[in-house]
Amino acid sequence: MTIADRWLLPDGVEELLPEQAAQVENLRRSLLDLYDSWGYELVIPPLIEFTESLLVGLEHDIDIQTFKVVDQLSGRTMGIRADITPQTARMDAHSLNREGPVRLCYAGSVLHTKPKTLMGSRSPIQLGAELYGDATLGADIEIISLMLETLRAASVEQVTLDLGHVSIYRALVAQAELDDDAEQQLSDALQRKSTVDIEAAIANGITDPALAKMMLALSQLNGDRTVLERAKTELANAPASVAKAIDDLATVADQITARMPGVNLYFDLSELRGYHYHTGLVFAALAPGHGQAVANGGRYDDIGEVFGRARPATGFNTDLKALLSYLSADNSAPTKGSIFAPDSSALSAEDSLSLWQAVQTLRAEGERVVCALSGQTSAPDCNRSLQLHNGQWQTVNH
Amino acid sequence: MTIADRWLLPDGVEELLPEQAAQVENLRRSLLDLYDSWGYELVIPPLIEFTESLLVGLEHDIDIQTFKVVDQLSGRTMGIRADITPQTARMDAHSLNREGPVRLCYAGSVLHTKPKTLMGSRSPIQLGAELYGDATLGADIEIISLMLETLRAASVEQVTLDLGHVSIYRALVAQAELDDDAEQQLSDALQRKSTVDIEAAIANGITDPALAKMMLALSQLNGDRTVLERAKTELANAPASVAKAIDDLATVADQITARMPGVNLYFDLSELRGYHYHTGLVFAALAPGHGQAVANGGRYDDIGEVFGRARPATGFNTDLKALLSYLSADNSAPTKGSIFAPDSSALSAEDSLSLWQAVQTLRAEGERVVCALSGQTSAPDCNRSLQLHNGQWQTVNH
Repeated sequence: MTIADRWLLPDGVEELLPEQAAQVENLRRSLLDLYDSWGYELVIPPLIEFTESLLVGLEHDIDIQTFKVVDQLSGRTMGIRADITPQTARMDAHSLNREGPVRLCYAGSVLHTKPKTLMGSRSPIQLGAELYGDATLGADIEIISLMLETLRAASVEQVTLDLGHVSIYRALVAQAELDDDAEQQLSDALQRKSTVDIEAAIANGITDPALAKMMLALSQLNGDRTVLERAKTELANAPASVAKAIDDLATVADQITARMPGVNLYFDLSELRGYHYHTGLVFAALAPGHGQAVANGGRYDDIGEVFGRARPATGFNTDLKALLSYLSADNSAPTKGSIFAPDSSALSAEDSLSLWQAVQTLRAEGERVVCALSGQTSAPDCNRSLQLHNGQWQTVNH
Repeated sequence: MTIADRWLLPDGVEELLPEQAAQVENLRRSLLDLYDSWGYELVIPPLIEFTESLLVGLEHDIDIQTFKVVDQLSGRTMGIRADITPQTARMDAHSLNREGPVRLCYAGSVLHTKPKTLMGSRSPIQLGAELYGDATLGADIEIISLMLETLRAASVEQVTLDLGHVSIYRALVAQAELDDDAEQQLSDALQRKSTVDIEAAIANGITDPALAKMMLALSQLNGDRTVLERAKTELANAPASVAKAIDDLATVADQITARMPGVNLYFDLSELRGYHYHTGLVFAALAPGHGQAVANGGRYDDIGEVFGRARPATGFNTDLKALLSYLSADNSAPTKGSIFAPDSSALSAEDSLSLWQAVQTLRAEGERVVCALSGQTSAPDCNRSLQLHNGQWQTVNH
């Protein structure tokens, strides 16, 4: 590398300079305070773990997203976390091991080997909340509400909540008794939303005409609230768990609409994002001007089983750096300006010490005081300065 | 791995559960607020960079401390940062590219392939401050003062400030015209503080008897303030830069003693920690009960040169997790307890909505409100609950 490009950062890896870093820090604090006010306790999982712990119950996707290194102490493979959720699941199942609901939240850097989307970050600052130990819809509604409150606090406007439920697809697939290959073909086609491929996969794998018809109908069940009525009709002959899932979606929709009338709802009953990981209701928040979800989550019961303790679980997460793009420039708190203190090396020992004491008092009172170096006579952003009058240091406006 | 050990963490890798995580978060905020009040701007450098950028001007030590991975996008080697200081140097030299003093601070995770000390962490949360663009002693004194203020804020008591200056050794070595091997042998011996090896290295490499005598004297110049007087005498025939370095140490000692009379001073003129990296005054803070320094730093001028812009630089850093051990248990802010809200799924739509509004109002007022799930009738840490009286939700003490 030449001097000219030593400062280059890898693609999808960003540094945050002071202005942006201050915004991220303010947002981080206000969101963690929000979660605290909802009873969510902060945890700080490690940046690195053995891959056996890090990748439990997760899809192949997250495995290939994870940077691997060899542990020189144990010879085993470790991964730099690509997701924090499985770490909190381990903490809930093993480290905390409490009875009843456990609410956890976190904020920390993760790394991805490749960006998830074109122009996406490979080093997001993942922030999220997880609710363990409750299998009822009340937990899902709490998590969705907190996700939407997160976006409100981050000034994200015109939010659309995208709701799905993986149990519907699961129930139909179970009834169709598809083999693994045929199931993979179908779920791939559904995730790509390719009608031709969906039709081919159904024709290839599902022999029962009624079931094939329901699966085709499922692939088209997306849109506004009327989707739920259509689903009731078109999936009337599906297993009972399908009707239950549709009812759950309606209950969530009612509650969220009552609580947050400004949020648009969108239903996509064939949404299979995180399908191998999720076990029930799945959700994502979308906002204008961004192709990908700004936050997402879902139910992922029993992930803790590999740690010896199956627990119901639901949660969401977002990327602090991605939220930054929604903050308006005037969102940062107005600064009252800094106070400039003269160079103490030019002063007597006595004046230098009294200056130090005056500066420290002002700082303790919440002022920002910048001390002159090398005989500086001013510094940026200073609108006041400390001056010695009759043996007393006084703050003087410029 | 069996279920029983999937939760095992690698040696030297820690997770922070709620109680500790809250302490770390409080400390992190109060320290970043402290740095802000001194005019230090927060930056957030990335967790990963090309090794050519990450390892500039650093010793072999930091190279072997750094986990390496291959960038699948570029085919080049990237490193997970083992230190944040070189990243801020790049930001100062290239990304900010400002004139005059630039004050930066940061808090973030780093990873080390091996612990630096026995029982040490391999995943510290590094927190520090760096001052660029000023070569005077005033900058060193500011950084040392801020390091000591950091420890005061973290309740570290009986602090000893260990002061050294690599220019003294450098000047003697330059005059002795040692070859690389002899110099390496001598600096290794000095770092190990092995008298036998030091004498052997001096005998092996330094032919001038006066110079050999000064080098031997240097190896014994450690202890309290009287060391500086001894140094003046014993190194009287050394190059002028040695006398200047001793004078600088005396000035720093005077200033720090005046500002912080409770801090013990210790001088070690042959201290060569970070020798290839540091260029002037070096310092460390020690506290009872911990073998290793709780914070350290030093001057490292011109590190930005590889990014096209040499700048004077001095700074310090510490590990937030290590600071945690100094916090007394009663240091955490007293909690006023949480409010318990009943399960809204058992209520009418109207009561459920009014409960939501009451809960949100309380949260906005700074209360922590925990909502019941699955018909829970109580939750931990709740000393009040919301109850419906005459159509109004009221907070009732338990």
